[in-house]
Amino acid sequence: MAGDIEARLKALDLVLPEAKAAIATYVPFLHLDGQLVISGQLPLKDGGLAVAGRLGDGVRLPDGQDAARLCALNILAQAKSALGDLDRIQQLVRLNGFVNATPDFADHSKVINGASDLMVEILGDKGRHTRIAVGCASLPLNAAVEIDAVFAVD
Amino acid sequence: MAGDIEARLKALDLVLPEAKAAIATYVPFLHLDGQLVISGQLPLKDGGLAVAGRLGDGVRLPDGQDAARLCALNILAQAKSALGDLDRIQQLVRLNGFVNATPDFADHSKVINGASDLMVEILGDKGRHTRIAVGCASLPLNAAVEIDAVFAVD
Amino acid sequence: MAGDIEARLKALDLVLPEAKAAIATYVPFLHLDGQLVISGQLPLKDGGLAVAGRLGDGVRLPDGQDAARLCALNILAQAKSALGDLDRIQQLVRLNGFVNATPDFADHSKVINGASDLMVEILGDKGRHTRIAVGCASLPLNAAVEIDAVFAVD
Repeated sequence: MAGDIEARLKALDLVLPEAKAAIATYVPFLHLDGQLVISGQLPLKDGGLAVAGRLGDGVRLPDGQDAARLCALNILAQAKSALGDLDRIQQLVRLNGFVNATPDFADHSKVINGASDLMVEILGDKGRHTRIAVGCASLPLNAAVEIDAVFAVD
Repeated sequence: MAGDIEARLKALDLVLPEAKAAIATYVPFLHLDGQLVISGQLPLKDGGLAVAGRLGDGVRLPDGQDAARLCALNILAQAKSALGDLDRIQQLVRLNGFVNATPDFADHSKVINGASDLMVEILGDKGRHTRIAVGCASLPLNAAVEIDAVFAVD
Repeated sequence: MAGDIEARLKALDLVLPEAKAAIATYVPFLHLDGQLVISGQLPLKDGGLAVAGRLGDGVRLPDGQDAARLCALNILAQAKSALGDLDRIQQLVRLNGFVNATPDFADHSKVINGASDLMVEILGDKGRHTRIAVGCASLPLNAAVEIDAVFAVD
């Protein structure tokens, strides 16, 4: 049953987190007309926030990259919850990367690479996406990173 | 003539603001191929900015939520201006919520809930959307919140 | 060979910069189903960052507007690289404008007008787009502005 992408996750020794359920009045994903739109995901792990704080003030680059990787895994967990089978992904179209950062921080691209690189490791060429990477004054729950996504799906 | 959603607005005792006209070279909305894309809306009321300042520094949570509600009403005013009839909305696909916030503010989600909750009150299940909520260093005119939207429409 | 839009660029005495090649695991554009999605573009000129720093702290409004214009030119350079012929653009649907700004800065709209106005100068009515303009705590490489775009294309 498990498809190509599940196999690659296994080979990379990666386990998707549990997809966080719908909270209140917004939803974690919408699947409409070949497009899967995912709400902003935080670096959650085992149900809690794994990386809190700001880049440029306490959170070092490798920790920021870990946060971005966790956001990417949570995005894939939502995609699996929406699609059932991750092999239905035709293309990751977009990642919008928001970094909790000080005014003098300049390595937002390197932080979001944590998510970008992981998506290509897992999805191959279907993971090559467009993106933005910008610095935020603050993020929900003091998360270090928030990333949302759009996929083209069958 | 007035449809279901207009009736619900009336039952909720809500009056849509006047849709702000096109300014200069960008437009408040574009309706293309079943998608209605809305420009970022500020918390305008009676033609002026109703909630200015930063969350975490003077603007309290309830005022931020009011600002988000006003952004949502301005989004619906643009949708009505674009579609004529709000019953043509099939689904609110996306809200992007930008909160004018200090570095130590962490309740962005609660602020943007002001818009999310109102959308579901007015649109019902068609108002259940994906979203982001992030903190901005500053916003145009010192607005407390800016929100943009994408709808699927007939 | 050169179409209407190339002629207008020439009449405006504008030369598109070289489209920056794909970096690492993300791509500068994706062209899918009549939609061209462009990654966030910085104010690059001759291969380097032309406008660095923050609005409200050293970078003046006209320099911010120049930065936005450069982002717009880099967006069009990517579109040309993707489409071959800029006349294949049917509509600029969206600009997302991120301004590197201090907490007390309030003229984000005027900064992003640098990009909005140029798009209409070059693309005519096909350049009238929806947009957001928000203030960021910081941006990659300390750029003054980052803008991404979505086009409807044939």
